[in-house]
Formats: sequence, C-alpha cells, structure tokens
Amino acid sequence: MQQVVLGIDIGGTGIKFGLVNQNGEILVTDKVKTKGYPNPEKLPEDLFKWSQQQCAQLDVQLAGVGIGTPNGNYYKGTIDFAPNLPWKGVIPLKAYFEKTFNLPVALTNDAKAAAIGEMFFGAAKGMKDFIFITLGTGLGSGIVVNGNIAYGFDSLAGEVGHTIVYRNGRECPCGRRGCLEQYVSAPGIVKTYYEILRKKNLDDFRTSIGNMIDSAELFKRANEGDDLAKEAFQITGEILGFALSNAVCFTRPEKIFLFGGLAQAGDILFEPTIKSFESYLLPIYKNKIPIIPSGLKESEAAILGSASLIMKEIA
Amino acid sequence: MQQVVLGIDIGGTGIKFGLVNQNGEILVTDKVKTKGYPNPEKLPEDLFKWSQQQCAQLDVQLAGVGIGTPNGNYYKGTIDFAPNLPWKGVIPLKAYFEKTFNLPVALTNDAKAAAIGEMFFGAAKGMKDFIFITLGTGLGSGIVVNGNIAYGFDSLAGEVGHTIVYRNGRECPCGRRGCLEQYVSAPGIVKTYYEILRKKNLDDFRTSIGNMIDSAELFKRANEGDDLAKEAFQITGEILGFALSNAVCFTRPEKIFLFGGLAQAGDILFEPTIKSFESYLLPIYKNKIPIIPSGLKESEAAILGSASLIMKEIA
Repeated sequence: MQQVVLGIDIGGTGIKFGLVNQNGEILVTDKVKTKGYPNPEKLPEDLFKWSQQQCAQLDVQLAGVGIGTPNGNYYKGTIDFAPNLPWKGVIPLKAYFEKTFNLPVALTNDAKAAAIGEMFFGAAKGMKDFIFITLGTGLGSGIVVNGNIAYGFDSLAGEVGHTIVYRNGRECPCGRRGCLEQYVSAPGIVKTYYEILRKKNLDDFRTSIGNMIDSAELFKRANEGDDLAKEAFQITGEILGFALSNAVCFTRPEKIFLFGGLAQAGDILFEPTIKSFESYLLPIYKNKIPIIPSGLKESEAAILGSASLIMKEIA
Repeated sequence: MQQVVLGIDIGGTGIKFGLVNQNGEILVTDKVKTKGYPNPEKLPEDLFKWSQQQCAQLDVQLAGVGIGTPNGNYYKGTIDFAPNLPWKGVIPLKAYFEKTFNLPVALTNDAKAAAIGEMFFGAAKGMKDFIFITLGTGLGSGIVVNGNIAYGFDSLAGEVGHTIVYRNGRECPCGRRGCLEQYVSAPGIVKTYYEILRKKNLDDFRTSIGNMIDSAELFKRANEGDDLAKEAFQITGEILGFALSNAVCFTRPEKIFLFGGLAQAGDILFEPTIKSFESYLLPIYKNKIPIIPSGLKESEAAILGSASLIMKEIA
C-alpha cells in the first residue's frame, strides 16, 4: 500500500493540512480555523479522524506526521510562547499528536519546515548547503548545513531576520533596533516607502489619497512605473543584498532561495538584491552564489515542508 | 600497539608537527622553517622519515596525518593561493602526503583545525554547536554545526572575520571596507589605538616616543593603567560583541570560544566583548551563550587541531 504522511501548517488564522506521498504530491488537503481550537489537544483528535477517513478512501497508509508552526521548537516538540497563536505558554503539541496518532511525529518552525520542503521537493534537491529566506510579514530563515537544518543548541538557530543591519535603526518588537526584518519584509518595505515620501515632503499628497498602502499595492504601483514605489524596492533589495553578503560568510551556501509574498515581486526585488549582494561580497564568493526564487509553489510550500520534515525522519 | 596520528601546522614562518595519541597527548614534536621547502613535495618525504624514526623509538603505530594550513581547502585537499606561504597557486598537499605515507590524510584551514581541536581536546568536548574564533594577525573562525565543522559548498565557510561591521569602514586587503578583522585582530586594535590618539590630537606626544607599538605593548600599557590603551580594548570588545550578537543568529552556538594572542589579554578584552554582546543580543539568546577562552594551550592548539582533524576521519 502506498505510504503517505500528514503535513500540517499552523498559522495565526488558519491550520492547513494534507496527505503527501513520497513524490511530493498532495493527494488531499483541507483547512480549519485556528481560533476553532482554543484547546490544542482537540486538534490531533480531529486530524486523526480526518486522516483515517482520507486514507481509507485513497487506499493509502499513514506513516507519520510533520508540523510546521510559528515558534516551533524541534528538539522539544513544543510551541513556545507564540504571540500570534491562541495557545499561550509552552504547548507540547508533538506529544499530543504522538499520543493520538501513535506514529512518528516531528515539529519545527515554519521557515525551517519550508526549507526542508525546498530540499525535498523544490529547487534545492540534492543540495547540502543553502539558505532559505521567507519574506512575508517577517523575514524567516532556514539554514541548511551539511544536508541538515541548522537547529543549533536549542532549536532557535536561523534568526537571520533579527540580525542587526542598522545599529540605531527602526524599532523592532524584539526590543532592539535595526533588525533586518524591519526593512526587508512586507511591512518593512511599506515603511521604507513612507520614509521616502516623508523625505520628499510628499506626505500630504500621497497619504491623503487614502489609507496606508500595503506591499501588494506597492508592487502594483512599482509595476505601473511609480518611481517612488520602485525606489522602495531598490532600497529594500540593497539592504537584503548587504545582509546576505554577510550571511554567506558563516555557512557558504551553494544557493540562496527567496520565498514568500514579497519574493513574488520578482525582478523588481531580485535585481537590486543581487546587485547589492555582489557589490558587498567577499571576492572568494563573487559570482558563485546565485540568489534565486524558491522552487516551491506558494500554495503548497507549507504543507510540503511539514510533510518533508517527517519524511526526513522516517526515511 | 598504541596508535598515534601526525598533526602538522603550516605557518608562514615555521611548520610545526607532532605525534598525538588518542588522549590528546603530544608525545613528540618538532619544527622546520617554511622557507626551507621551496618545493612542497619535499615536506612529506622529510616528515615521513621523521615519523618512522619517532614511531619506532616510541613503539607506536602511525594511523593518519592531519594538516592545518592557511588557505587549506578541505574538500580538495589543496592549499589555494596562500599569500603568506612560499607555494604559489594551488598545491595538492593532501595528495603529496597520501602518496608518501600511504595512510589517511586530511587537510583544512588552520582556524577550522583548531576548532576541531577544541571539540576533541579542549573546552568544547561533547558540544555539537559552537563558534571558535582565533584572534591573531587576522580573525579566523571555525563554526561547528551538528557536531561537524561547517565547510559549506566549497570548504570556504567560516569567514566571520570578513563580515562587514562598518559599511564605509577601514580598508581591508580583501578589497572591501569595514571587515570585522580590520578592527578585531592584533593589527586592528593597534589601528584603533592610533585613531584614539589622533582624535585627541595626541599624535605627536605619543608616537614620537618611538616606533609604532604592537598589540602586546598595547596590552602591557592597558594593564599599567594607560586610559587610552584601555579605551582601545573597550572599543575592540564593543565591536566584537556586536558582530558576535549577529553571528549567533545563524547557527545558535552553545558557546563561543576566543583563542589566540589577542584573546590572551583576558578580562580587559572579554569584559567589554560580553557586555556589548549581551546588549545587542536577541532576547531569546540573552544570558544563554557564554563567551569564554579556548581550553587549548596556545602552544599545543595547532598540532592538536590538525591531529584531531584526522582522528575524526578515521574514528
């Protein structure tokens, strides 16, 4: 009988899950609302029932469960103090799933899961060293070294979004200033845009048009030829390129993958990023480390990532 | 019969080597001048004769050869374009040694070898994730992830000394500006000292006393209470602490080890480094990552490092 795994992606709004086979095909998928689970122990129960039904219908056998979640701790199998989830404190979600499913379960944070997905089913197949960056509401990262995610001592490695790029830069909710994700993320680029407006004393003209714009609208304007929107992408790419030129000094990746909403802007972001990256790069690395888009589909990455996490364990 | 390995440390001036047993004891050691070997193929021949003699005398058996060298490429077993060695271009030194010794040989750069030495025989025993920094004429580094040195795609990972800390900072021989090692190294701290003098318009008074001072003299002055020398250590520690606070975001080490001439300054360097590190650190890491001196003796580290490199391979 064909073996499949259950990949689960937990988000602040929704929980997406699907059965995935060894070829990275999502055979069936569904989602529930996160707020429907004030008690997290209910989640494995419902997903167990769902999996049993689906497996019977598809005539496949479930071999394991992989979970990607904000603030997921791989070593402990817990979700630790996730500000955007309804579950407070430390939640032993892996243990809950093991108890219900009686199968191998693995849990990690969402960016790390997506990085493993890139390695299994995306553009990083066969690569042993790469950096995976997600550009969304924050800047997440998964650093693969020697064929494995770098978890570090306590599973909290891979915080590239919180490397400081400006010592007295923008305030970050982490309590410090100048973190990369304050500049390179969906909200970050919008802040940069409004900074440009302010510097040019264009506030009244632009902002009076309506509410604050978001990064999607910014992308639209840039594509329509709006110079100030284009400048925001330029500046964002310049900062990202600089940060990545430092990042490669640690683990010397074969490639760097950019994923997520902001990365979908394409050339308008990639071009200034690569230009800046190469200009700051240590000569021994120059023209050797491509920065390319993720090979995963935006809609599938989260489930495939979680699925590949457990596939890696039971392989 | 007791097994030993030959550990070789190649430097610009001298080549040190020794027979090391499994307990990290250097049974016998010797050295030769690097310039005595304009032809690198002669080196394995001489060291083979030496090893045979010593092994017979000590009644031990040689099991392998480990080599630490500037610009050592672990994957290829070569020394690539080392500016401070008499051998130009790409030298396949590992192959030369394999041919002569007919034993397992491994070669890597000196900082990475010392990091492995720390793991085998120093203060990092049993650790799976740590960062090892050597502070000498440059700033070298070995990053251990998951129990192994991070070599990266082409063996050139671990260039922490070339992360940029000031975008328009001091010129670096690498061709860029603001590299960490231009500030945090023996020559770097001396530059900082002279910068302080210049800023205070004290050039004439101080520099007229004699020739440029070196970092050892600077340490002596700082210990004697010279405020400006102390300030140089303060600034150096501040910059190192900041750089390390970014460094830990990648691989989340259990500890950071400082090694080498400048690190021997002790508290006068460690105190401002740790203070700065903690002040810039992402809250999830605060007060959790000790920065401590290497557990290796300065005189033994290079040979022990090279020896442990090959011990790891043949274990």
